[in-house]
Amino acid sequence: MTTDHMLKNLISRRGFLKGASLGVGLPVLGGVLTACGGPNVPAAAQAATAMTDMTPAPQPAGMTADEMDAMHEAGVKAFVAGVKTAGQGNQPLQPKVENGVKIFELTCKEIQWEYDAGKMADAWAYNGQVPGPELRVTEGDTVRVIVKNELVESTAVHFHGVIVPNKMDGVPFVTQPPIKPGQSFTYEFVARNPGSHMYHSHHNSTKQVGKGLLGAFIIEPKDKSKDPAFDIEHTLILNDQLGGFTINGKGFPATSALTAKLGQKLRIRYMNEGLMIHPMHLHGLPQLVFAKDGWNLPQPYMCDTLNVAPGERWDVIVDCTEPGVWAFHCHILSHAESEHGMFGMVTALIIS
Amino acid sequence: MTTDHMLKNLISRRGFLKGASLGVGLPVLGGVLTACGGPNVPAAAQAATAMTDMTPAPQPAGMTADEMDAMHEAGVKAFVAGVKTAGQGNQPLQPKVENGVKIFELTCKEIQWEYDAGKMADAWAYNGQVPGPELRVTEGDTVRVIVKNELVESTAVHFHGVIVPNKMDGVPFVTQPPIKPGQSFTYEFVARNPGSHMYHSHHNSTKQVGKGLLGAFIIEPKDKSKDPAFDIEHTLILNDQLGGFTINGKGFPATSALTAKLGQKLRIRYMNEGLMIHPMHLHGLPQLVFAKDGWNLPQPYMCDTLNVAPGERWDVIVDCTEPGVWAFHCHILSHAESEHGMFGMVTALIIS
Amino acid sequence: MTTDHMLKNLISRRGFLKGASLGVGLPVLGGVLTACGGPNVPAAAQAATAMTDMTPAPQPAGMTADEMDAMHEAGVKAFVAGVKTAGQGNQPLQPKVENGVKIFELTCKEIQWEYDAGKMADAWAYNGQVPGPELRVTEGDTVRVIVKNELVESTAVHFHGVIVPNKMDGVPFVTQPPIKPGQSFTYEFVARNPGSHMYHSHHNSTKQVGKGLLGAFIIEPKDKSKDPAFDIEHTLILNDQLGGFTINGKGFPATSALTAKLGQKLRIRYMNEGLMIHPMHLHGLPQLVFAKDGWNLPQPYMCDTLNVAPGERWDVIVDCTEPGVWAFHCHILSHAESEHGMFGMVTALIIS
Repeated sequence: MTTDHMLKNLISRRGFLKGASLGVGLPVLGGVLTACGGPNVPAAAQAATAMTDMTPAPQPAGMTADEMDAMHEAGVKAFVAGVKTAGQGNQPLQPKVENGVKIFELTCKEIQWEYDAGKMADAWAYNGQVPGPELRVTEGDTVRVIVKNELVESTAVHFHGVIVPNKMDGVPFVTQPPIKPGQSFTYEFVARNPGSHMYHSHHNSTKQVGKGLLGAFIIEPKDKSKDPAFDIEHTLILNDQLGGFTINGKGFPATSALTAKLGQKLRIRYMNEGLMIHPMHLHGLPQLVFAKDGWNLPQPYMCDTLNVAPGERWDVIVDCTEPGVWAFHCHILSHAESEHGMFGMVTALIIS
Repeated sequence: MTTDHMLKNLISRRGFLKGASLGVGLPVLGGVLTACGGPNVPAAAQAATAMTDMTPAPQPAGMTADEMDAMHEAGVKAFVAGVKTAGQGNQPLQPKVENGVKIFELTCKEIQWEYDAGKMADAWAYNGQVPGPELRVTEGDTVRVIVKNELVESTAVHFHGVIVPNKMDGVPFVTQPPIKPGQSFTYEFVARNPGSHMYHSHHNSTKQVGKGLLGAFIIEPKDKSKDPAFDIEHTLILNDQLGGFTINGKGFPATSALTAKLGQKLRIRYMNEGLMIHPMHLHGLPQLVFAKDGWNLPQPYMCDTLNVAPGERWDVIVDCTEPGVWAFHCHILSHAESEHGMFGMVTALIIS
Repeated sequence: MTTDHMLKNLISRRGFLKGASLGVGLPVLGGVLTACGGPNVPAAAQAATAMTDMTPAPQPAGMTADEMDAMHEAGVKAFVAGVKTAGQGNQPLQPKVENGVKIFELTCKEIQWEYDAGKMADAWAYNGQVPGPELRVTEGDTVRVIVKNELVESTAVHFHGVIVPNKMDGVPFVTQPPIKPGQSFTYEFVARNPGSHMYHSHHNSTKQVGKGLLGAFIIEPKDKSKDPAFDIEHTLILNDQLGGFTINGKGFPATSALTAKLGQKLRIRYMNEGLMIHPMHLHGLPQLVFAKDGWNLPQPYMCDTLNVAPGERWDVIVDCTEPGVWAFHCHILSHAESEHGMFGMVTALIIS
């Protein structure tokens, strides 16, 4: 497989990020597409890749190098082709609006979640999605979230990071009774503090969040001039329970690539709903870190590996100045690659 | 149990934080006390909680939802009522003053430590407390700490974060001989760098700190105007060895609540004496992070989840603008909640 | 063993850090050398250490306190004397220069690596070193790295943190074919972003980096005035796979001490190539943190314990104002000390 072929596949099969119309950048991609043998590659490298392969001894895992490489290649090929799995999490949920109140309805229910091709997990989900649907409102909005519990356990929803009246805080026996199976509960509050927040179960939470009762809650600022400018955005919800290591509910190669056009500014909202840290490393392009838990930093700073701890959210800007397919993964390598190839918390930023 | 009842219990039974005279804020609490059914609750929510409970199927842990809820409720009720356990750690130790020198005496001894009601651990403690007594001095003070070792192992005390002459640094065979069983050693230095520091064993330390030989060492600045203003303060020493996950030596529900009056500014000193990170999440109110390891940051920043790594100290200010009982816990959920209810690194900030 | 004796050993046997000519500081060390009983020690302390040792009961590990102390002392003594192990990692590799291009050659090969005296690990190494040789260039340099694979598995090299053209990014099947056993590959790029970076395998990386295929890649800025001033520098590559917990490929007591003269400013470059966080605690002297992943922070800040996550690099300045032997270790205590003494991620900063 050539990179050329790979990128053409990417261009034809992926276009899910709003504002990222792939294919437009082909003249730029021209440079990228020569990556494995074009005129920009040092002569030595071209010679090297043309060398005859020596017969390697079987290596410790009981595979030859070629057998191992084939498994790694298959994973990348599957990612490039786009892995078909049932269900997609973190999909925007349009609120009903009544008397100026933005109303969201969430139903908690047991489902089967396909976190990678053919790999199913017993999940508990909001509206059948893992992560649950993205709830997005604007600073100052009155928000009502009606939660219906169709699980066998009681539950409750905590709006993590959102400043709410105490009685809307979602902690059973502290701020409300638990929502029993078959019951509902209505949360209502004014969205006061803008930023990248979350919602999740706060009852038997190690299990309930672990099984998928989690999602993004984003409050847009009234005055957007306080945030850095950006053209497109993507939310990455990191997790390490249901289905192992996942980004937005899927493990590589079933993860979604992030796409951008050359020159665009990409905002990434990191959210960690797992039990472990995940230092997220983006290849090729630095990240400007500008907000922590929804609060803008007084002084943004640059990095390439951002350590995201459970419960934290971080917002960054990536200036998409370098075309290509940039690997993007947790740098705890055991969350990202095994002898069978890349897996888990791996995706790519594709700039064309 | 109603929230009303719960808060009344809290008001009558807890008053341990200096400056936090509970009960005064009752008119404000009026708003809080209606949390489960008062006029401020959306009508839909009230209707929902009045729904007839459907008979749930037994859930996977072998409990019905009601049985599980009862266990969760019992934990919260116990916390609210105030769990009686023997011993309280981190109690201020008044120094003797001789010729202007502030003298503290610490005796290392094996004890039984009740980290939760009826749950005992074989501990090694300074002055019978886990954490050991809080040592608090002022920048510029000459400090003498006399350590008497009544353990079966040798020991030594390191003043973690405090700038001391090398010979007072507490590392056996590097800066001093170990303090053998039955012996004492005297540390003496001028307290130069203000901030939230620690002291702990630096001999066979994985075990000795793990068994409880640790405490807070706080140096007040001479010029307090360099710190942000605050009305009250609380130190949270995080740990994950003796008795499992603990805050100030106790696990939920035996943890102490933090209390504040509406409008007060609360300073929290986080210290991690364990072997794992603990991202501490306070519900409802943001934290202004202003110092790292006792050093004021050039630019404080806001967050709601603060990742505290072993050996780190962080100082934050919480502006207590929202009345209520705010859950406060490690956001590695497995450090905070099981199917049997909340446990370990969980407490609450109660603002009245 | 007295501290006096220990420091004399240190002075006579260690002088490996450029710019750190030990022995010069003896008049200053005079103060240090009295650490265990000189005139600066409080009288009480001297009396205490002269107390008769009571016969302790055997302690839980089945050793007497004296037996345990002897094991601890032996480790410190070995460190002070300088442990002889075969091989030293992170040695500067001088590039060949052809037509202005700086050319480095790296050969990947299986070796035996002695990570502590007599303790061997099956390693995969660049040029026979763990970590691999330090590659150091200047911003604006054209760099060519020729990688020859003599392993039984395919491999590839990723320049972690370095902004390179996509095809030079080192991810098999994404940006290049894997380098098969017996083959080579040539990377070539202009070093654009100065700072402390890394290079490591990006194929079957959990295993390959874990076995030692990693190293420092440092880009000096063209304009050095943008960095804080410093007199000497040291790179600490943290790891937790090959040979357990190591700094620059060796575990205590085989780790190298950092040395500095009183008054010097020391730059430390932290790099984490492991799978766990390592909060690095330097005794006695604060660290001014000024760069993250090679990018200077807009506002440096002070700390004594710096949490370094996998894939992160941090640069700090230590102002060596306090003479002595300062312990320096990961503050996850189980990475640094057992009942048998200090081990793993422990070294010392020796200021004379």
